Amino acid sequence: MDNNVQQALSVYRDNLRRQNALGLAFFLNSWDSETEAPALTIEHRDAQVGTLSEMYYELATAADLTDAIRTLYTAREQLDAVLRHEIEVQYKELCKLQKVPQPEYVAFSQLLSKATPVYVEAKRNADFAMFCPYLEQIADYKKRYLEWQRTPDKHGYDILLDEFEPNTSVVFYDELFDLLKKELVPLVHRIAAKGNPDFAWARQIFPVDKQKQYVEYLRGVMCFDPARTVIKESEHPFTGGNGRWDVRITNHYYPDDVASSIFSAIHEMGHGLYEMQVDQALDDTASGGGASMAMHESQSRLMENMIGRSLAFWQTHYPQLQELFAPQLRNVTVNEWWRYVNRVQCSLVRTEADELTYPLHVLIRYELEKQLLDGTLAVCDLPQAWRQKYREYLGVDVPDDRAGVLQDVHWSGGDFGYFPTYVLGSAYAAQLYDAMSKDLDIDAAIREGTVRQLAQWLETHVHRYGASQYPRDILQAATGRDFDPSYYVNYLKDKYSALYGLDKD
Amino acid sequence: MDNNVQQALSVYRDNLRRQNALGLAFFLNSWDSETEAPALTIEHRDAQVGTLSEMYYELATAADLTDAIRTLYTAREQLDAVLRHEIEVQYKELCKLQKVPQPEYVAFSQLLSKATPVYVEAKRNADFAMFCPYLEQIADYKKRYLEWQRTPDKHGYDILLDEFEPNTSVVFYDELFDLLKKELVPLVHRIAAKGNPDFAWARQIFPVDKQKQYVEYLRGVMCFDPARTVIKESEHPFTGGNGRWDVRITNHYYPDDVASSIFSAIHEMGHGLYEMQVDQALDDTASGGGASMAMHESQSRLMENMIGRSLAFWQTHYPQLQELFAPQLRNVTVNEWWRYVNRVQCSLVRTEADELTYPLHVLIRYELEKQLLDGTLAVCDLPQAWRQKYREYLGVDVPDDRAGVLQDVHWSGGDFGYFPTYVLGSAYAAQLYDAMSKDLDIDAAIREGTVRQLAQWLETHVHRYGASQYPRDILQAATGRDFDPSYYVNYLKDKYSALYGLDKD
Repeated sequence: MDNNVQQALSVYRDNLRRQNALGLAFFLNSWDSETEAPALTIEHRDAQVGTLSEMYYELATAADLTDAIRTLYTAREQLDAVLRHEIEVQYKELCKLQKVPQPEYVAFSQLLSKATPVYVEAKRNADFAMFCPYLEQIADYKKRYLEWQRTPDKHGYDILLDEFEPNTSVVFYDELFDLLKKELVPLVHRIAAKGNPDFAWARQIFPVDKQKQYVEYLRGVMCFDPARTVIKESEHPFTGGNGRWDVRITNHYYPDDVASSIFSAIHEMGHGLYEMQVDQALDDTASGGGASMAMHESQSRLMENMIGRSLAFWQTHYPQLQELFAPQLRNVTVNEWWRYVNRVQCSLVRTEADELTYPLHVLIRYELEKQLLDGTLAVCDLPQAWRQKYREYLGVDVPDDRAGVLQDVHWSGGDFGYFPTYVLGSAYAAQLYDAMSKDLDIDAAIREGTVRQLAQWLETHVHRYGASQYPRDILQAATGRDFDPSYYVNYLKDKYSALYGLDKD
Repeated sequence: MDNNVQQALSVYRDNLRRQNALGLAFFLNSWDSETEAPALTIEHRDAQVGTLSEMYYELATAADLTDAIRTLYTAREQLDAVLRHEIEVQYKELCKLQKVPQPEYVAFSQLLSKATPVYVEAKRNADFAMFCPYLEQIADYKKRYLEWQRTPDKHGYDILLDEFEPNTSVVFYDELFDLLKKELVPLVHRIAAKGNPDFAWARQIFPVDKQKQYVEYLRGVMCFDPARTVIKESEHPFTGGNGRWDVRITNHYYPDDVASSIFSAIHEMGHGLYEMQVDQALDDTASGGGASMAMHESQSRLMENMIGRSLAFWQTHYPQLQELFAPQLRNVTVNEWWRYVNRVQCSLVRTEADELTYPLHVLIRYELEKQLLDGTLAVCDLPQAWRQKYREYLGVDVPDDRAGVLQDVHWSGGDFGYFPTYVLGSAYAAQLYDAMSKDLDIDAAIREGTVRQLAQWLETHVHRYGASQYPRDILQAATGRDFDPSYYVNYLKDKYSALYGLDKD
């Protein structure tokens, strides 16, 4: 390696070391804010967190770092494959960051800080009008952002889609969602017409302390090593952490909905296993963590839906649940439980949706984002458009903005282009599951009592690479073919046709 | 204010803002480490924490900050009293820091990092020999430090004493401890000869969940506002936080020692109230928080011992305790409980010592530190010297190093000169309590059910000043006279002579 490349690498690594150190501070701050800090505490440390962000921005845009990344990018043929990928990603991000005028960057951060509490309040009051002026400013910024980032090859919504998932675009997602719409909407309508049994037993009270005991039991099942994980509570379940040695999930316990905490736990532990199984050699690099949003979501959904809602899983783990909740589940068979946790129901809220209707919730957001960004839909008309689409795709009437357009936090945080990755993740999961099933007898592995074998397969084929390759390349190597959404469509059609006793077409 | 002073002030404040932001990171890291992070997590983030410390050191020693502090110090007559005091303190610290050769500073930080796990292991194995080489290096550094900091006015142990509590010295503490030794050792021996009732009921099991309920009850009594405080668990109880808006305490619950969690809670909430009642105007300055170690300890001990162990307190709050622990306390009168929580017992461990023997534990450490630093005691001879003094002052035989010389964490962290502030704090508390009793009917205030009136008195006379004045000046203004240890001696003699039915001499 040339001397000046060596020198650039040392500048780059020292800067990264400092960014990572501040990353610990950001992680601890958000973890504490979400799980434990009292209300007054959070608002009074805003200024300190702002200063840490300022220090982070100064590091990330420092002239010596910029020069170092340029030098390394120019000399990238001298670097090993992992470092070369890392530098390519960093170079791309640097170029994007430098196209944002610094005053705009600062003003947008401040706008988001102000928008968050307004969004929370507006959601509480189910009052979109209150939040609308902020969302208009956020959307305006995004439109200006798209102009700054415009290239001959890429413009508009494509730019944002590509930021959340490399090598995606409107063309790519349109094709995916068109297929899903064509295949799933009729199936959903046929199932809705058929209806579900009453499942009255599921509406009993399931004491929260017992639910927590069962989640501790699931920690063992999911190989979620207590020496480097934490399970805590928060308003909405999420996964956080500080690299492979510190992985944390939260849960939320509803006394009248025992399934909620169970599947949230499995979902978040799916995310967590990914973080825990990234190759240790990537620890101090920018290639730790998951390959992309969609790849992360594929891991949580594979565990939650394909493993956690399988009959084999419950034949193995239902006895422990039934024992804990003897009064409530005495007369509920494992088959009945399995049907209950796989019931399809057209509903209002994405995060509570079942596996089959979930992509339709995302489709709605995708279509609305496209229209917002190309100017064919005004922010103030969002609630109306939202209602229309929920009626059309899911056949439900939205009673108010809280259960409607204000339900998701993403837009208030400036995240446009994020939603489609949820569905793409589910589609990746189906393709990975298919490949896994060729290497392993998955049901037999599940019946061993833990997900050890499955987690090992995922470690070997996905997790260990971290973010050192593009997600589609990882998927290709793991499954032997490029992304193909038909695995997802077939998985859903097979599973739910069988569950509801319908012909496949 | 001159233009260049104005300019210096802006540099100073911007640097402080960044230091404070990193302070949030350090607080969150230590809080998380002490209360929740799994073992592997903690060791794997050492490097990140080290990098944050490096960034902090760079800020605290930046050339522009140094220049700014010098400019402000030179122009200090132009500053208001609060800022002038702040700058004087900063200037003093800067001068001290600059006398430490940078490689020595770094090497000592690394030594402490390595010493901590060895200390923990040595304590676990009750094996001083294992820790001895590290303590020798720590003590050697301290001796070099004293040479760097030596001035015509001040040398040796005085330098360290003054760092923990301004305007103290060997002469000052010798006088204090000589008085305590003379007055308290004979009293302790007379009480030991008299002995205690059996208190067999106290050795029952007191369920931890009920203990936690009582601590929640005490939160109300202590006016420990839930909107900006957290109560959690850790190995040893402590108070932490991030300014007046974020105050956190921990507790430790022993099923066979119900008094432990009660008095730990009151003690830590005493510290916490101090932090919560510092004038809001000091929020973003270097003068937030307590005035000194001793003044902080005076607030926790005043609440724990003078208020929390008073008969009026238990006449008010014993019924709730008795109700919670009906099976255990059914036949225990309030008077018997009050005697139990004020029993004197010569024991081995400082943190578990009663109010009367506590200063003797500290006296032993003070005498040993003096000898270590003036070279009349070798580190390897510490365990022997420790045993001798425990026999002499407390009449107890030290069975091993864990219950002996390894019991306290301070020396492994390089803190010499810290221990005496514990006793000085108790003495401040007695003098403040006397002044408070002239303004208030304390027992009547306690019988109101919360410490509201007492906390208000402390806010007015002590808390609101934060660290904006020297502790002795605050004490003088609050009590109308300079520090006088006779309040402390008289308080202890009166209280314990009465409790044990002894003549006062």
